[in-house]
Amino acid sequence: MTAFVGVSDTVRWIGRRGAETIMAEMADTIEDDFRRWRSFDKTHRMASHTPFGVIELMPISDAELYAFKYVNGHPFNPARGFQTVTAFGVLADVHNGYPVFLAEMTLLTALRTAATSAMVARHLARSDSQVMAMIGAGSQAEFQALAFRAVMGITRLRVFDVDRMATAKFVRNLAARGFDITVCDTASEAAAGADIVTTCTADKAIAQVLKDADVVPGMHINTIGGDCPGKTELDPLILERGPVFVEYAPQTRIEGEIQNVPADFPVTEFWEVLAGLAPGRTAVEQITVFDSVGFAIEDFSALRHLRSDVAGTDLAHDIDLIAAPDDPKDLFGFAVSPVPVS
Amino acid sequence: MTAFVGVSDTVRWIGRRGAETIMAEMADTIEDDFRRWRSFDKTHRMASHTPFGVIELMPISDAELYAFKYVNGHPFNPARGFQTVTAFGVLADVHNGYPVFLAEMTLLTALRTAATSAMVARHLARSDSQVMAMIGAGSQAEFQALAFRAVMGITRLRVFDVDRMATAKFVRNLAARGFDITVCDTASEAAAGADIVTTCTADKAIAQVLKDADVVPGMHINTIGGDCPGKTELDPLILERGPVFVEYAPQTRIEGEIQNVPADFPVTEFWEVLAGLAPGRTAVEQITVFDSVGFAIEDFSALRHLRSDVAGTDLAHDIDLIAAPDDPKDLFGFAVSPVPVS
Repeated sequence: MTAFVGVSDTVRWIGRRGAETIMAEMADTIEDDFRRWRSFDKTHRMASHTPFGVIELMPISDAELYAFKYVNGHPFNPARGFQTVTAFGVLADVHNGYPVFLAEMTLLTALRTAATSAMVARHLARSDSQVMAMIGAGSQAEFQALAFRAVMGITRLRVFDVDRMATAKFVRNLAARGFDITVCDTASEAAAGADIVTTCTADKAIAQVLKDADVVPGMHINTIGGDCPGKTELDPLILERGPVFVEYAPQTRIEGEIQNVPADFPVTEFWEVLAGLAPGRTAVEQITVFDSVGFAIEDFSALRHLRSDVAGTDLAHDIDLIAAPDDPKDLFGFAVSPVPVS
Repeated sequence: MTAFVGVSDTVRWIGRRGAETIMAEMADTIEDDFRRWRSFDKTHRMASHTPFGVIELMPISDAELYAFKYVNGHPFNPARGFQTVTAFGVLADVHNGYPVFLAEMTLLTALRTAATSAMVARHLARSDSQVMAMIGAGSQAEFQALAFRAVMGITRLRVFDVDRMATAKFVRNLAARGFDITVCDTASEAAAGADIVTTCTADKAIAQVLKDADVVPGMHINTIGGDCPGKTELDPLILERGPVFVEYAPQTRIEGEIQNVPADFPVTEFWEVLAGLAPGRTAVEQITVFDSVGFAIEDFSALRHLRSDVAGTDLAHDIDLIAAPDDPKDLFGFAVSPVPVS
């Protein structure tokens, strides 16, 4: 049998464990997997593009588990009453190829994206960081805020979104949760005085939601929304001001902020910092940039974390995805009822 | 909601509709899709190889539906009590990217493979064919026999397998189903007098289960078991004796019988025959070869056929794989319970 965790199960999981606890623990799982980066068989994602959007399969494996995520991106969906992104994922045992775990990943991806951001900031942002600017108050925003509080202790937020309804939703969702939130009229105003700037905007454009002039020494910039060709958020001048960290350089050069700079622009893969192979932040005044596009290892980590956390609970359900006849050569006898002897 | 069809549902479907009826109808669905070959966005499969075996993702789409199949191949599995191959598949709507259908495909692949073989033979074998030799009596054998009866009216079988237990299982499974079965001691004996020869053996080797001397004018050869690098079934001399038809040439050159001949060996993609762009069989004495490796369009066809056939019945079940908040920007409010106002 294959274990299944659906959307309602994930909602109940978050309700029971708490989003912050989940993301703090998941950040550790992701960090553990980043530390053993070389043990993964990494590959490009497989994308099917149409005028409506894109559907992608993202596989990855280590010696024990194979994972893949199905994810779509359809920018016109919200105007038509659909979600822009939906996702689900599967874990399989490498030794026999059996799919053992199937889960929704629309919510899980939101959790793992924020957990990754916070985990990376734990190593790259100044340890005395107190204030985070949030440019973009859409689907990912509250998850980022909670993850940064859980992992970094950030409680002071300065938020700006071009859509005031989104800002109002953000404030409403977080108001009773103990944050000190300042609503700002511009991105520059939000960034003013922030130790960390998170950009998570949705427009599919080569945008500059954060200007070079908004960036001051000591900042850590966590840029989430630039995550596919033709969709970026930073003034490219910012990338020149301090070291740029990425997940997996071959993918980020196509999808991240660094698509706007030459192909030989120097970047550090963040796992190298964890492995002690490259420096992270080396000075208080340094500006650090995490150019995040989302990588398959994060999905792998999130799936195995979820699987482990819900094992044996009523949040996982068996579904019969695996045909297992007693005699492996007798698939027919398994599938087809015998003819009654008359 | 996403519709789910599990293994037990597929078994009940076969029990209700009958394997022959299903494969005859599925053959028509596959033929319809082969006729509109150019309307598909075809791509290579994505394989993850380990010493244990391989796990593959096979995506394909037309303008309306996107499909992918997950399938593993683990040759040492049977000795360890596991199935060599398990599979499942997904259909998604191209216009919004939502996964709408999830089904087991271990059984469905057996049905579609046999339906494809019979559909192709309907066009390439002599129309007066009466006798089929079956070399290999493993998992796929009975499905092939039933599909060829349903589509071509074949009732006389000559069967050989190196494993006499497999042959006994084959006879037992088909005995009460009205076939005239001759058990043979060698592959050559099985082929003698046959109009159609189906090879479906399991050894991962460059084998010659069918020799050049076994092949006589007028035969149609349906070779199923040569389906990955290093796994073939035919004496390559046979390929020189008549036209060779394949599903998708770039894939078959890597995986099929034609991996044993030069890369410029001429083949015909079978859809071209259906489209009137290439000849099929042109003479009664001709020897025709269908070098089948299995192609993603067949899975696409099988999934849409199953989905259509079980729609509205108790064979399909809703699973909640899609998170759909009322406000697309408020994923957090959908996922996380509000803090109680004290």
